[in-house]
Amino acid sequence: MLARDLAEEYPLVQLTDDALTAARLIAEQRRPGVVVVDADHKPVTVLPGSQVLRFIVPGYVQEDPSLARVYDERGGAEACVTKLKGRTVKELLPPKEKRYELPRVAGDATLIECAAMMARLHSPLLLVSDDDTIHGVVTTSHLLDIILAAAGEQA
Amino acid sequence: MLARDLAEEYPLVQLTDDALTAARLIAEQRRPGVVVVDADHKPVTVLPGSQVLRFIVPGYVQEDPSLARVYDERGGAEACVTKLKGRTVKELLPPKEKRYELPRVAGDATLIECAAMMARLHSPLLLVSDDDTIHGVVTTSHLLDIILAAAGEQA
Repeated sequence: MLARDLAEEYPLVQLTDDALTAARLIAEQRRPGVVVVDADHKPVTVLPGSQVLRFIVPGYVQEDPSLARVYDERGGAEACVTKLKGRTVKELLPPKEKRYELPRVAGDATLIECAAMMARLHSPLLLVSDDDTIHGVVTTSHLLDIILAAAGEQA
Repeated sequence: MLARDLAEEYPLVQLTDDALTAARLIAEQRRPGVVVVDADHKPVTVLPGSQVLRFIVPGYVQEDPSLARVYDERGGAEACVTKLKGRTVKELLPPKEKRYELPRVAGDATLIECAAMMARLHSPLLLVSDDDTIHGVVTTSHLLDIILAAAGEQA
C-alpha cells in the first residue's frame, strides 16, 4: 500500500479565504486543523485549531486565563469571533518562521516512509502530493492502523 | 456552558499498560493520541500517535526516510510493531522534560478559559478534571464550534 492509497480527503483553504470560514470548517468537520494552499493550489502549511484560538483569544487572557471571567459567555464568544471578521486565512497564520512545517510525501511513498516523515516532524498529519496534485492527507492513527494490520496485528 | 459540560470521553491508558494496546487504541479509535494516567488515575501526559511512530520507526529511517525502501511492506511493518512488544506505555514516552504538557482546566472553567489554555499551550486537547475526577477531554474543534455558536455564528 502506498501513500496515495492511504490519503483521505481533507479540508483545504486558500490563503485569501475568509478566516471565519476556515474556523467554521474546523468546527463543523471536527478536524484538528485545515491544510492551507496558495492561489496555485500548492500547499503552504497547516492551520491548526489551536492557532485559530491563539488569534481570537485576547492576549491578556492567554497570559492569565483567570481573566477570562471578566466576560459573560456570550460576550466572551463575541469578543473572540469579532476578531475573525474581515480577516483572511493568511492573517491568521503565525509569521513564516513559526509556521508548522507540513510534512509531505510523494504518492508512491511506502508505509514506513510515511511513518518516518511523521515521526521526524512530530506531525499528526502528512500531506500526500505529486507536483500539482494533492492526493489528500494521512493521519497518524490511520497509518498506525495500517502498519498494525500489515504486521498481522490487527487493531 | 462550562468545561465539564463540554468534556467528552477520551481513551485513557496507564503508564504500566502494554504499549501495543495503546497503539491499537489510537489506531482503532482514530484518535490523535491517548491520555496517560498514573496508578492513582492522575493525568501524566498525552501520548500522541506521532510519538508512537517515533518509537517504532528505526532511527536511521527517520534520519533518511528513503532508507525505508530497504524493507518490503510486511517486513517494514513487522520491524516497527516488534519494537512495541513487551514494552509499557511508560517506555514509549519521551523523557520527562520532553513530554507534552497536558493543559488542564477545572470542571467550572468557562469557554474562554478553555480557549486561553489551549491557545497558550498550542494544544489540540484540553483535559477537564477536578482533584481525582477526570471529566474528559475537550478538542479545539469542539470548542471552536461552541464559541461560534455562543457568538451567534453557528458553524
